[in-house]
Amino acid sequence: MSERISGILTPNITPVDSSGRIDEDTLCGYVDWLIDHGVDGLYPNGSTGEFVRFTATERRRIAEIVITQAAGRVPVLVGAAEANARETIEACEAYGAMGARAVAIVSPFYYRLSSEGVYAYFREIANHVSIDVTVYNIPMFASPIDVATVIRLASDCPRIVGIKDSTGDLPSMMRMISAIRPMRSDFSFLTGWDVALVPMLLAGCDGGTNATSGVVPELTRAIHRNVQAGNIDVAMQLQYQLLPLFDIMLGLGEFPEGFRAGARSRGWDLGPGRVSITSVQREAIDEDQRKIDVMVQDAVGICADQTTTTEKIQKIVGQVLKQLES
Amino acid sequence: MSERISGILTPNITPVDSSGRIDEDTLCGYVDWLIDHGVDGLYPNGSTGEFVRFTATERRRIAEIVITQAAGRVPVLVGAAEANARETIEACEAYGAMGARAVAIVSPFYYRLSSEGVYAYFREIANHVSIDVTVYNIPMFASPIDVATVIRLASDCPRIVGIKDSTGDLPSMMRMISAIRPMRSDFSFLTGWDVALVPMLLAGCDGGTNATSGVVPELTRAIHRNVQAGNIDVAMQLQYQLLPLFDIMLGLGEFPEGFRAGARSRGWDLGPGRVSITSVQREAIDEDQRKIDVMVQDAVGICADQTTTTEKIQKIVGQVLKQLES
Amino acid sequence: MSERISGILTPNITPVDSSGRIDEDTLCGYVDWLIDHGVDGLYPNGSTGEFVRFTATERRRIAEIVITQAAGRVPVLVGAAEANARETIEACEAYGAMGARAVAIVSPFYYRLSSEGVYAYFREIANHVSIDVTVYNIPMFASPIDVATVIRLASDCPRIVGIKDSTGDLPSMMRMISAIRPMRSDFSFLTGWDVALVPMLLAGCDGGTNATSGVVPELTRAIHRNVQAGNIDVAMQLQYQLLPLFDIMLGLGEFPEGFRAGARSRGWDLGPGRVSITSVQREAIDEDQRKIDVMVQDAVGICADQTTTTEKIQKIVGQVLKQLES
Amino acid sequence: MSERISGILTPNITPVDSSGRIDEDTLCGYVDWLIDHGVDGLYPNGSTGEFVRFTATERRRIAEIVITQAAGRVPVLVGAAEANARETIEACEAYGAMGARAVAIVSPFYYRLSSEGVYAYFREIANHVSIDVTVYNIPMFASPIDVATVIRLASDCPRIVGIKDSTGDLPSMMRMISAIRPMRSDFSFLTGWDVALVPMLLAGCDGGTNATSGVVPELTRAIHRNVQAGNIDVAMQLQYQLLPLFDIMLGLGEFPEGFRAGARSRGWDLGPGRVSITSVQREAIDEDQRKIDVMVQDAVGICADQTTTTEKIQKIVGQVLKQLES
Repeated sequence: MSERISGILTPNITPVDSSGRIDEDTLCGYVDWLIDHGVDGLYPNGSTGEFVRFTATERRRIAEIVITQAAGRVPVLVGAAEANARETIEACEAYGAMGARAVAIVSPFYYRLSSEGVYAYFREIANHVSIDVTVYNIPMFASPIDVATVIRLASDCPRIVGIKDSTGDLPSMMRMISAIRPMRSDFSFLTGWDVALVPMLLAGCDGGTNATSGVVPELTRAIHRNVQAGNIDVAMQLQYQLLPLFDIMLGLGEFPEGFRAGARSRGWDLGPGRVSITSVQREAIDEDQRKIDVMVQDAVGICADQTTTTEKIQKIVGQVLKQLES
Repeated sequence: MSERISGILTPNITPVDSSGRIDEDTLCGYVDWLIDHGVDGLYPNGSTGEFVRFTATERRRIAEIVITQAAGRVPVLVGAAEANARETIEACEAYGAMGARAVAIVSPFYYRLSSEGVYAYFREIANHVSIDVTVYNIPMFASPIDVATVIRLASDCPRIVGIKDSTGDLPSMMRMISAIRPMRSDFSFLTGWDVALVPMLLAGCDGGTNATSGVVPELTRAIHRNVQAGNIDVAMQLQYQLLPLFDIMLGLGEFPEGFRAGARSRGWDLGPGRVSITSVQREAIDEDQRKIDVMVQDAVGICADQTTTTEKIQKIVGQVLKQLES
Repeated sequence: MSERISGILTPNITPVDSSGRIDEDTLCGYVDWLIDHGVDGLYPNGSTGEFVRFTATERRRIAEIVITQAAGRVPVLVGAAEANARETIEACEAYGAMGARAVAIVSPFYYRLSSEGVYAYFREIANHVSIDVTVYNIPMFASPIDVATVIRLASDCPRIVGIKDSTGDLPSMMRMISAIRPMRSDFSFLTGWDVALVPMLLAGCDGGTNATSGVVPELTRAIHRNVQAGNIDVAMQLQYQLLPLFDIMLGLGEFPEGFRAGARSRGWDLGPGRVSITSVQREAIDEDQRKIDVMVQDAVGICADQTTTTEKIQKIVGQVLKQLES
Repeated sequence: MSERISGILTPNITPVDSSGRIDEDTLCGYVDWLIDHGVDGLYPNGSTGEFVRFTATERRRIAEIVITQAAGRVPVLVGAAEANARETIEACEAYGAMGARAVAIVSPFYYRLSSEGVYAYFREIANHVSIDVTVYNIPMFASPIDVATVIRLASDCPRIVGIKDSTGDLPSMMRMISAIRPMRSDFSFLTGWDVALVPMLLAGCDGGTNATSGVVPELTRAIHRNVQAGNIDVAMQLQYQLLPLFDIMLGLGEFPEGFRAGARSRGWDLGPGRVSITSVQREAIDEDQRKIDVMVQDAVGICADQTTTTEKIQKIVGQVLKQLES
């Protein structure tokens, strides 16, 4: 049995060049930068990666670049949803062959499927693939995967090894953990709602796939590390730091344009993206760029300080423990 | 300036064979049958045609078959939404070259775009295509295109020649007609909400793209003809006839499985579709098949009678008018 | 068996004086004016009458004034919802004793009850009152009364003689009419959604309780009369006339402040109302007052013309029919 | 300046006797029992107390009984919303005279007010009362009080000393705390969403008004105490314990019937309530009563154990600290 998928995985933006094509060099550089900044995994072709705005062929290429560039340094979870179950199964197998740790499959979108239909879709995929599957619940964009359906899939499909949930609904996450953990110790619970990261981790989540980690990986990662270390107050303080940055990036232009602006604050020009925007929207982004710059610099600064502080505290605690032992 | 798109256009189901491939022969036969039963146009790659469950390549093939088979007997409106504006523009041009009358483009889905983003998307497309475009508003599945945005697009983009609206929201349709008709006599208003067809036509809609017309084309068409002829009472009676059939087909399994069952009542085996369903859902469909059979036969029977009655009435009215003239 | 409640009933605004008390004189005068302008009934203590913003004692007084002043000239339907079933039953009996034709009872609000709870509430009331009851469905404000529950209540409770529905959902109204009319010829279907009045009447509704009839009774009433007379085109034209007036009044300040502004355009100062508004809202109302003035005058003018035209047409038709007979 | 309202305040159910009247004796006994079981305050005429199902006169009586019986042992927060601002102001003053610590005022309900209207309402009240006011946000039942409006009210109205929020939306709570705490150290943040109690307290909330504390006061209180003491793991475990009990009680019959069943598990017969239910609903409640009995006993047992454990841990920690000091 594999280890549970855990930590902070970055749903990376897909860089495009000025002619709208995948900017492969920048993507490689960005992957390196993310790994160097401590993210625990990568997650190409997620919502932040604008998977639906690329063609099926492009999605394969994006996954290939990220997996190759990561080169085993961190696990890669690949978004694998295609037009229907058969196409998705083929994509899953392709990503497995490339070396992906697992795939993430969003529930069917456009149509709103019933719980039965959602179950049928995932079971059909799970029964036909040889790679680990995580199901991805994001009801604001796709058919909801309700708690009962997740439990049913965890019971019936050994290939399904996790849920990535972007609702931010803590009680529902707890309902899933309560029901599934006793029967599936290999099942991973990941949250995609950055602003509820601390409580989700406290409730037992293994980690998150968080768009902010593509902008301030230090901060998102520090939240995870501090919860793990039991420094809840520090973690909560960092959560407060993350919130306004998340809010401004989420509200800017069309998603994920605000996160692209955030990356720009780190020196990354990830290109114009794949979504059409008006000049009014463009101006709003330009205007908010400086605010984001400041918030990003603040966050980075605090994490630098915080690391030092944590190290100090850990040192002191270590000394105290030693004294107690002696 | 082209004539306005009008009448009942059928968003046809895409037949697939037992191995899940497009069943081209059946599709050709079905196209002929629909035309023979009086529909005013065809609309492949709509929601009923499960466009998102086919690949980009398949969508091209489906459009090609329908246009070729229709062979100019009725106009063909092709669903042309692809992964992004650029891909959609290419698809539009391809459909234009094939002989489509126009394309229908659903608002971006998965992400919920703002009104600005929706406007930017359609304007970008409209500025780069040489085929007439209708915008397709179906907020339960895709980003809403609000009334103000439709009016803005009608003002700014001559290439956009119509709106297909599947909300069933009569006052909003009236708000659009009030604002757009005075400035754009070539702009077409089509409703995709079968159960509001009579009031929509009374309010000035040019027609509809109605899934029921793929099952009981006689009935959907008779509603349109009767409103045009001023036989509102008859039209309303037929609307009452359509309602429970629509309700049962819409509620069955996953959309459009109920409409597939309806086609089966007419002798058309359009195959298993592209959506995964559970055995529980399969049994529910089988159980309701007989109810649908009965309702479809009733509807067909009433239309046959109604045609005769209308002809009788028209004869009598004709005689009265002649007498009055003399 | 009583006759069905039908026609246009006005859910009248409750005038208050500058100190916030019910302005009884103005209320009496307004009732007379409405009756003189042809409304078919009155409906005090409806949503437009701000029933929840008055005390239980005040609601009784309002009903008493309206019933007394109407003096049998038109029937009065009284909003009777109180804090719980027992209080509501007592109010019903009081209104019956005052001479109300029937009561209208909104579904429990604040809490969202289940369909079972909604059914239980109305059945308990229906079993304990001696006055006719109409149930009032307005899901944007109160617990929804779904189609199945209305049918169940119509089957089980002879005292329930009608539904007033403010959703504007035509197909659901048709579902109710289909199911209930065959078993309850005394059951009345009324619509509270002014902008769907024509289609609702065409579908078989008996009338409406429409806030616009408190401002432009001529217009709302003319829509009803024209549908009854089969002049659907004229009715639809008037519906188009009503729409922007309804839109501006509904959107202004807090409901029903826009309708209060509309009454002001007719010379009625119905006072400041019972809802707190900010100075920003007050200025917006003042600014739109002139627009409303113009729209109201237009509507009144058109109705005057239209009446003349209808009379002319009726004259001509009468002559033709006589000629045909001879 | 008063101390912030904090801890667990019980929104108590209002007992009624078999004839539907307030059961004053039981209410007094229940108040004593709650105080004896450690709740930090009482909150009559809240949603759980079915305030809208009682008359204005009854609401006054309920508040009077609770305040008198509490006799200063714990503070009492009284739900004070009446038909309009003027009536609410009078109620506030009456509750102040009775000795209430503060009032809680739900946003206007039935109508959905705009943010401006919500602001105007609360400001008008705040400007005219001499008792502390907490505003109560419960958007599933009443007009939403958005984050910006809460901040605006906290800035402009010194009389408003707190927000009780029943959304469970953690990020929005954090947005409010971020903005208001720096300017108003006397402003209290209370959560009414029991299943998010731990994260809300971690984020800085002062306490909660939680319906579960009327059934298992030991458990709800223990969550609060453990978070305060920094025993986050224990608190989270207790939160997991609370969740299924909350779920079953919330889902049973009409709210708050499930909580009434919960009280029954503690030996409290609080009567039939004020909501009409069907026999089907009655049977469902009877059937679930045993499940609730078991869950309640489990919760009580765990809290007893947990208290012991906590005491043990505190003893050990105390000894360690002493040793460190020496």
